[in-house]
Amino acid sequence: MKTINNQPIGIFDSGVGGLTVLKEIHKLLPNESIIYLGDTARVPYGNKSKDTIIRYSIENTKFLLKHKIKLLVVACNTSSSYAINVLQKLFRGLHIIGVVIPGAKAAVEKTKNNRVGIIGTKATIRSNAYTKAIKKLNKNVEVISQATPLFVPLIEEGWVDKVYSIDRHSDYYRRVSHENILRQLAAEYLTPLKKANVDVLVLGCTHYPAIKSVIQDIMGRDVCIIDSSEETAKTVKEVLQKQSLLNANKKSHLKFYVTDDVVSFKAIGSLLLGKKIKDVKKVNIY
Amino acid sequence: MKTINNQPIGIFDSGVGGLTVLKEIHKLLPNESIIYLGDTARVPYGNKSKDTIIRYSIENTKFLLKHKIKLLVVACNTSSSYAINVLQKLFRGLHIIGVVIPGAKAAVEKTKNNRVGIIGTKATIRSNAYTKAIKKLNKNVEVISQATPLFVPLIEEGWVDKVYSIDRHSDYYRRVSHENILRQLAAEYLTPLKKANVDVLVLGCTHYPAIKSVIQDIMGRDVCIIDSSEETAKTVKEVLQKQSLLNANKKSHLKFYVTDDVVSFKAIGSLLLGKKIKDVKKVNIY
Repeated sequence: MKTINNQPIGIFDSGVGGLTVLKEIHKLLPNESIIYLGDTARVPYGNKSKDTIIRYSIENTKFLLKHKIKLLVVACNTSSSYAINVLQKLFRGLHIIGVVIPGAKAAVEKTKNNRVGIIGTKATIRSNAYTKAIKKLNKNVEVISQATPLFVPLIEEGWVDKVYSIDRHSDYYRRVSHENILRQLAAEYLTPLKKANVDVLVLGCTHYPAIKSVIQDIMGRDVCIIDSSEETAKTVKEVLQKQSLLNANKKSHLKFYVTDDVVSFKAIGSLLLGKKIKDVKKVNIY
Repeated sequence: MKTINNQPIGIFDSGVGGLTVLKEIHKLLPNESIIYLGDTARVPYGNKSKDTIIRYSIENTKFLLKHKIKLLVVACNTSSSYAINVLQKLFRGLHIIGVVIPGAKAAVEKTKNNRVGIIGTKATIRSNAYTKAIKKLNKNVEVISQATPLFVPLIEEGWVDKVYSIDRHSDYYRRVSHENILRQLAAEYLTPLKKANVDVLVLGCTHYPAIKSVIQDIMGRDVCIIDSSEETAKTVKEVLQKQSLLNANKKSHLKFYVTDDVVSFKAIGSLLLGKKIKDVKKVNIY
């Protein structure tokens, strides 16, 4: 085995959302060491401009490259939408995987009526990245996009499905009130997609799995909800296998870096990851 | 008149919110030139840590100092709460005015039952800056604070009072749905303050005047709502008068700088300001 096989996978995201991607990669490839960077000092990316998103993505990649990563996962949908091509040109030789193409592939495979819905941040939807990726795979698939910009702030406030139960400290009445508001908002955002009769809906933001059950309720049971995290993990495995880069060594580690405060990242991150986050450091990346 | 009198007033904010402060200063002091910096590439500040807020505030001040400002207004409540003391130590000799002390003064003047409510971002409320400022002025005033973190994202989505009508392009049903959701959320946030029987409520975030009528409705007509922008403008005038720094020259100009995209700032900014924003430049401040 080459030395490079022991090197870690690098993952970056604008904040905590990408931990859902890390979770799936770690589940599928437990031998792999992973270094995660959450750019919490500049979160969110979804309402920023293309140029700014690209600049931040380059800075994040440069930071991870210092840790000799063997493969980069861009876990942020907004960065994946705008910056993947730029990163691939700038950092030739580095294997770079975004979350958009795996999600698009899964959508094309799952749709039966060739009608796919996409939800995401304003920037992700404005970029048309999902539509382009899906059309490239099958030009007959109709793509209906909808920006859902208020989902992220609500989720970051802990207004999530019972499964995640970040909101568990709230009293019952507050939880009912939050669920009502979340449902009204989701109904407004999702009704155009439901009316458009999509049979697949891609969650084009790593935060959204936290409210999957509300989304599924509104879309109906027949609509297949795609969470890019699982699909991205599969792609990572495929690429590492193909390049003979899988790690046989069982001593793997998870390391976390954030650009803002460590404490709040540990708290919400541990819940998203389903296990306690220990090794977190604050870094200045620019 | 000294040359310094011709020099501009500098204002910074995390984004567009501080334009409500600029508007009041410009109304009260039309002869003064103003340079505004909106750190839109790193907005919002309200969910970031103390250290990061202080770092950003220093970088913003350094940028404005390059433009030879005669006085600095920290229009962001979050920055005012955490960074004013640090800025005053670092930049001795520069007149620095935040939005917290003017708001606190007005609250102490207006309250009759000595019960004052404060709403703001998580960071502003966590800092206790308003409580400290009010207690310093009158230790008998009881301060009841409430973080209202979802107001900013909603307002930035254009869910505002009819007066501002940023949401004017939405159809009627969507507007009614938004107003319902906003009212439910505001009721949840404000009920503890209403129950605490406050007779003054300080809007501790420059975005909040955009939903003042909803807040007034829920709090009731007897509660005096304080918008720090007007109070801050009065303080700026007092300081300039006292220091003999007012400008007699009528040729004043307004200049705007942002750290992210110019286009969206122009659009929402022009609405907040009530007049077209022309002279905007994108800058890299760090």
